Amino acid sequence: MNAVITLTTDFGLADSYVATMKGVILGINPDVTLVDISHTVSPQDIHDAAFILSTACDYFPPRTIHLVVTDPGVGTNRRAVILRTPVYDFVAPDNGVLSFVLEPFIDRMDKNGRAGLRSVTGMKACTIEEPRYWRTPVSPTFHGRDIFAPVAAHLSLGVPPDAFGKPVDSLQTFTLPHPSSLPDGVISAEILHVDGFGNLVVGIKASDLPEDTTKLTIEVGGVIIRGLTSTYGTSEGLLALIGSSDYLEIALKNGNAAAVLGLQVGDNVIIRC
Amino acid sequence: MNAVITLTTDFGLADSYVATMKGVILGINPDVTLVDISHTVSPQDIHDAAFILSTACDYFPPRTIHLVVTDPGVGTNRRAVILRTPVYDFVAPDNGVLSFVLEPFIDRMDKNGRAGLRSVTGMKACTIEEPRYWRTPVSPTFHGRDIFAPVAAHLSLGVPPDAFGKPVDSLQTFTLPHPSSLPDGVISAEILHVDGFGNLVVGIKASDLPEDTTKLTIEVGGVIIRGLTSTYGTSEGLLALIGSSDYLEIALKNGNAAAVLGLQVGDNVIIRC
Amino acid sequence: MNAVITLTTDFGLADSYVATMKGVILGINPDVTLVDISHTVSPQDIHDAAFILSTACDYFPPRTIHLVVTDPGVGTNRRAVILRTPVYDFVAPDNGVLSFVLEPFIDRMDKNGRAGLRSVTGMKACTIEEPRYWRTPVSPTFHGRDIFAPVAAHLSLGVPPDAFGKPVDSLQTFTLPHPSSLPDGVISAEILHVDGFGNLVVGIKASDLPEDTTKLTIEVGGVIIRGLTSTYGTSEGLLALIGSSDYLEIALKNGNAAAVLGLQVGDNVIIRC
Repeated sequence: MNAVITLTTDFGLADSYVATMKGVILGINPDVTLVDISHTVSPQDIHDAAFILSTACDYFPPRTIHLVVTDPGVGTNRRAVILRTPVYDFVAPDNGVLSFVLEPFIDRMDKNGRAGLRSVTGMKACTIEEPRYWRTPVSPTFHGRDIFAPVAAHLSLGVPPDAFGKPVDSLQTFTLPHPSSLPDGVISAEILHVDGFGNLVVGIKASDLPEDTTKLTIEVGGVIIRGLTSTYGTSEGLLALIGSSDYLEIALKNGNAAAVLGLQVGDNVIIRC
Repeated sequence: MNAVITLTTDFGLADSYVATMKGVILGINPDVTLVDISHTVSPQDIHDAAFILSTACDYFPPRTIHLVVTDPGVGTNRRAVILRTPVYDFVAPDNGVLSFVLEPFIDRMDKNGRAGLRSVTGMKACTIEEPRYWRTPVSPTFHGRDIFAPVAAHLSLGVPPDAFGKPVDSLQTFTLPHPSSLPDGVISAEILHVDGFGNLVVGIKASDLPEDTTKLTIEVGGVIIRGLTSTYGTSEGLLALIGSSDYLEIALKNGNAAAVLGLQVGDNVIIRC
Repeated sequence: MNAVITLTTDFGLADSYVATMKGVILGINPDVTLVDISHTVSPQDIHDAAFILSTACDYFPPRTIHLVVTDPGVGTNRRAVILRTPVYDFVAPDNGVLSFVLEPFIDRMDKNGRAGLRSVTGMKACTIEEPRYWRTPVSPTFHGRDIFAPVAAHLSLGVPPDAFGKPVDSLQTFTLPHPSSLPDGVISAEILHVDGFGNLVVGIKASDLPEDTTKLTIEVGGVIIRGLTSTYGTSEGLLALIGSSDYLEIALKNGNAAAVLGLQVGDNVIIRC
């Protein structure tokens, strides 16, 4: 089986945690192709992992298995799940780490943060409860190695999701930071992610902005940016553009916007249309 | 040959050193699967490399070749060796970097730090001396690329270990930091490793502790921890548990124990049973 | 097709940029072997990317495709190119990032920094202009994902370079920092690269030095080093040797020469023969 499994974790690059997961996977399916998405998710930061996963997963071949382990509740009673969408499979703790990925597939969230899954052809979600697909003994502190990795490997061999546990009709999610409309055509949004270049990824997409963006002004960290540019290289100084994941992005030509503006994830951006 | 070769080095991720080793390997065996264990071993830190290797190697499929290059003596008269155990092959400088891995296979250490290999079925060690399996000319500063990588690649094609050099019956090792028993049921152990989460891995295994761990107290950095918990998520503040590599571990829920306690590798931990 | 594609970028390891490129490649050629050269090139540092690429590319199997994306001009009118040499293919922006690689293949540089390609059997260069091999829509900020990655993947499937655009006979290059001869057998060279160990790679090769190196003195950061040693382990303190990429290198046994000397890329080194 020429399957692809991606890995997204907060395990860092210094320890052997990621390697042990790969070793376990290769022991079950030696023909799998393994691709790292990121292992430097901030420790225990479910929001960061959820965002990074969502910016990468759609670029992989159909039926890629996306394995995500940012799991501060490992060994407690949080559930582990498989989510099969029409295009991909996800293997993850049921702790909100699939929130961005789930957005097209959920109806509404209840007061406990659980969101009902829409009935979509080709989609299902199952718990991971069947020990026959696990590595034993299971360490209570490293389900990535002993549960998630072997489950992803067996999934890549064609084992169907419901062999691993019971169907579920809702998954844990957190509220995505959507833009909010204020009076007079003002939109408030928040910074979702700061990338390695210091570019600020803002939680508003091209489709949420007016078609004519020439009159836009963007207020961020006390600075006003007028209009959008199309690339990092066509404008001097601070600039705003629609980034490669379709979000509004604040950047500094050949520089680090986050450092210059002193901003971070969760900070506010005001857009005037 | 669907072989797996893992790589553990102190070469870091910024330079091309690791990539050149992979290029050399793929030129000899294009079908090999390459897996990074870690390349951010502290520069020249043989103990750190030996520990990280030992926490990863056993999770790979049988006959995986583990290539280890932390080699401050490169180009000097330190030997290079292949170690074949009943399950894995190791290719490394003979400088102690296999010390943790060798533990089940050695008898006793002489005063020069050389340990005799036990006679175990399926096990042998050989020097690496046969230039026909090397890349030439050999750089005296980069045996990883010119000797270790091509040797591992040829080994993955089925060349037997003794084709690369002469059998040896002892290997260089360092003394593993074993726990020591003090009077009144007190055990002293030392910190072996600080992982990327700041968890302190202590040189004492579950099997060295009493079965009833409810009465254990652990003194570390001036703080007393009472009893063991089973996961990072079930207890608040500083906690102790048996980690995923079977060692005692000191952690801080959603935090960095090493930073809070100001501790590092080699520091002492006192366990009262 | 058992092709190898290497990746060299300044995208860092925290974000999903590199992973999306790999996902796109695997969607076009699932059988390709992907190898990271480095993703921690200093942001927008074309010289650093060019150097790192040049130290790695020659160790890969013939016909490896080297994909390089350090691209501060992404989306502007800088060209994108494929360079086919007798041994390798390169896919990159035409911004100088191939300067070190091009050295054996160019004649002279014009005043705009464009260098004419020599007529060498098996060599050609082409622009990348044919959208049928791209991912659409093309993000103006991420040609790595939408143009370079799919072009490299199609190239790995055997599509000839001239299918992607038009032949070109010159490429953008920067002046390589060659050593300069001063009176009295004095040579001035500059630091090309500081590696992860803190070793200083100097822009002068073994072939530029006299055969008898015992009388060499090297002045660097106010310190005089006499003669060359052959390895990092045979001399105490600061030492000079010919490194594994054939450049002069200044190192500190078991230490970080760059930190101790306070030197960086571009700083001067004086060699007296």
